[in-house]
Amino acid sequence: MHKHYLMAPGPTPVPEEARLAMARELIHHRGDAFKEVMAEFRQGLQWLFETSSDVLALTCSGTGTFEAGIINFSRRDEKLIAIGGGKFGERWGDIGRAYGMNVVDVELEWGSHLEPDRLREVLAKHSDAAMVTLTASETSTGVFHPVRELAQVVREESNAIFAVDGITAVGVHHLPMDDWGIDLLVAGSQKAFGIPPGMGFIAASDRAWERAEVSDHPKYYFDLLRERGRQRDNQTAFTPAISVALALREVLRMMREEGRQALLRRHQRNAAATRAGLEALGFDLLASRPSDAVTAARAPEGITGPEVVRRMAQDQGMTIAGGQKDLKKSLIRIGHIGFFEASDIRMVLGALEAVMNDLGADVQPGVAMSAAQRVFLQD
Amino acid sequence: MHKHYLMAPGPTPVPEEARLAMARELIHHRGDAFKEVMAEFRQGLQWLFETSSDVLALTCSGTGTFEAGIINFSRRDEKLIAIGGGKFGERWGDIGRAYGMNVVDVELEWGSHLEPDRLREVLAKHSDAAMVTLTASETSTGVFHPVRELAQVVREESNAIFAVDGITAVGVHHLPMDDWGIDLLVAGSQKAFGIPPGMGFIAASDRAWERAEVSDHPKYYFDLLRERGRQRDNQTAFTPAISVALALREVLRMMREEGRQALLRRHQRNAAATRAGLEALGFDLLASRPSDAVTAARAPEGITGPEVVRRMAQDQGMTIAGGQKDLKKSLIRIGHIGFFEASDIRMVLGALEAVMNDLGADVQPGVAMSAAQRVFLQD
Repeated sequence: MHKHYLMAPGPTPVPEEARLAMARELIHHRGDAFKEVMAEFRQGLQWLFETSSDVLALTCSGTGTFEAGIINFSRRDEKLIAIGGGKFGERWGDIGRAYGMNVVDVELEWGSHLEPDRLREVLAKHSDAAMVTLTASETSTGVFHPVRELAQVVREESNAIFAVDGITAVGVHHLPMDDWGIDLLVAGSQKAFGIPPGMGFIAASDRAWERAEVSDHPKYYFDLLRERGRQRDNQTAFTPAISVALALREVLRMMREEGRQALLRRHQRNAAATRAGLEALGFDLLASRPSDAVTAARAPEGITGPEVVRRMAQDQGMTIAGGQKDLKKSLIRIGHIGFFEASDIRMVLGALEAVMNDLGADVQPGVAMSAAQRVFLQD
Repeated sequence: MHKHYLMAPGPTPVPEEARLAMARELIHHRGDAFKEVMAEFRQGLQWLFETSSDVLALTCSGTGTFEAGIINFSRRDEKLIAIGGGKFGERWGDIGRAYGMNVVDVELEWGSHLEPDRLREVLAKHSDAAMVTLTASETSTGVFHPVRELAQVVREESNAIFAVDGITAVGVHHLPMDDWGIDLLVAGSQKAFGIPPGMGFIAASDRAWERAEVSDHPKYYFDLLRERGRQRDNQTAFTPAISVALALREVLRMMREEGRQALLRRHQRNAAATRAGLEALGFDLLASRPSDAVTAARAPEGITGPEVVRRMAQDQGMTIAGGQKDLKKSLIRIGHIGFFEASDIRMVLGALEAVMNDLGADVQPGVAMSAAQRVFLQD
């Protein structure tokens, strides 16, 4: 017998309030009841994004939402600077290329973050850049980039739109969009919101919307000017993922009740405790500047990542993630984004102790859980 | 006190089996459990589409899915013939234009269907057409076009890809894709499947896939060649709407258990009974060739469509739809696509009798329900 736990960096466990909202009969997306739902979640999203701009909800994945961001706020003949260093950061460059843009890849070793001075050098060479894309929290490596400092560099050195993939950062790290001068910010339903995948959220600054007027990439479903017009009436241009929207309202209520500071603080503590537990077990943390959404770590000598992931699932009922691309062999990734608390972190670390012991590591019983507990009790 | 009923042409009531599947904790979309779900629903979709081609599942609305169909199987400099006659048919021409294609609109009065001979004339003038788009069941007018005959004309008169929006036709009308030579067929989760919106389904013929290799429209999220590669491994390229996928498996099981013939027959009877009931109340049916998914009808002299729709919602707890665009003032639309049975049809007609009576019409008690009952009992 095993209970099953999702401890991956999205999808994440869905709070009962949201699951039961999805179990109810649907409401029609063109009726007043849905307009009320949408008015409420639009306001909640603005609160979370810390922006006075519209936050639009699209029915698609995070990638689809970021693609919409790229193609609505740039032109075909423009230059896009894609900050790499992981699967998602690199993907935004691929999207620019798919649309025929002139893409400059800023290559980074996976696991390292971008120093603001390096971006300054890149922009000195490419002062004509129209867009800079960044994955704030890189899910494939567990890195959180210095977003605030990078935003400042973009503003100082260029007229580029600073497009931030906050898919695993919004609701985890402080990312006040308006204050920091972020032009585009994207989030996804299955991450900090803790609801099923199916919706992405995107907000744009006034200067980004000015560019939308002259964007020449072909688009229809992802046409955000049309979408903004409809969403200001609490409607969507096309049929939305209604059940995800109903769940979204529930979790935004929960997040607002918890409060933004407490929400971010909870993620910070969970992440710090996870890192402490992993290090106590001899894992080597990958990120030069860790994200509070996901922790990526290399297994100790003689033990492979996929083996740990497989045993965690089979023997402990816990879904954690492995590495992606070049890091497939070595890495494990534990997600702590969304509705997790100290108990969840103690639990996953306890299971990991058992797995490491089974794999022949010399594990002192309780070593990872105790390291985590020190973080929780100190705070 | 009012119970609430959805009798719109999508979203439709969701069977309890599907709603409870969505209320369970999520499973991870990269794990074996999801692969099993996907293998099963892929097979179920092939069964429903009556095709040996892959049926791909995309996380977006029906419009997004049809857009993917247009832009993957055509080129920018090609000619697209868009069969109009309703909001959705006309939309596919708009998508072609958004992508810079040469679009020929086949204009049709809303409510009428396209005669095969008229398409033959159009194709004689435009024998270079690369794609012909058709909305099989036009949700805005309740028309079902003669798809089989139109497919034959396209084959005889051109080399065009015949792209069929089956969003409110698949699972309602017999549309054997391979047999009839349909090149592209699209469906949507919130229609005959009776599950929440958030997923669209698309299948393409071998000759369509050949065109995909040379398509030059820019795309990333909607790149179906990449998607096909992944889905053959029972994975999606990007995070799918997991909860909708879990619901999909449940309803496909129910549909297969019911059997294709019984499923189509049920829709046919429900539609015929709805039409009989509406006519008995003095409504004027709009469609020259009615769809079994939705019935559109003009209210009798002196009564407006929006008034009927509003009273049905407020006084009877029943969500039906009004008219779209030019038909906003006059039309009501009753949806009977999905998991409806005779009881639902009797119920909506009974409520409509009450509303018409309240609006001052001379209603013989039971007249619409009796007309419907004659259809059900005769069959």
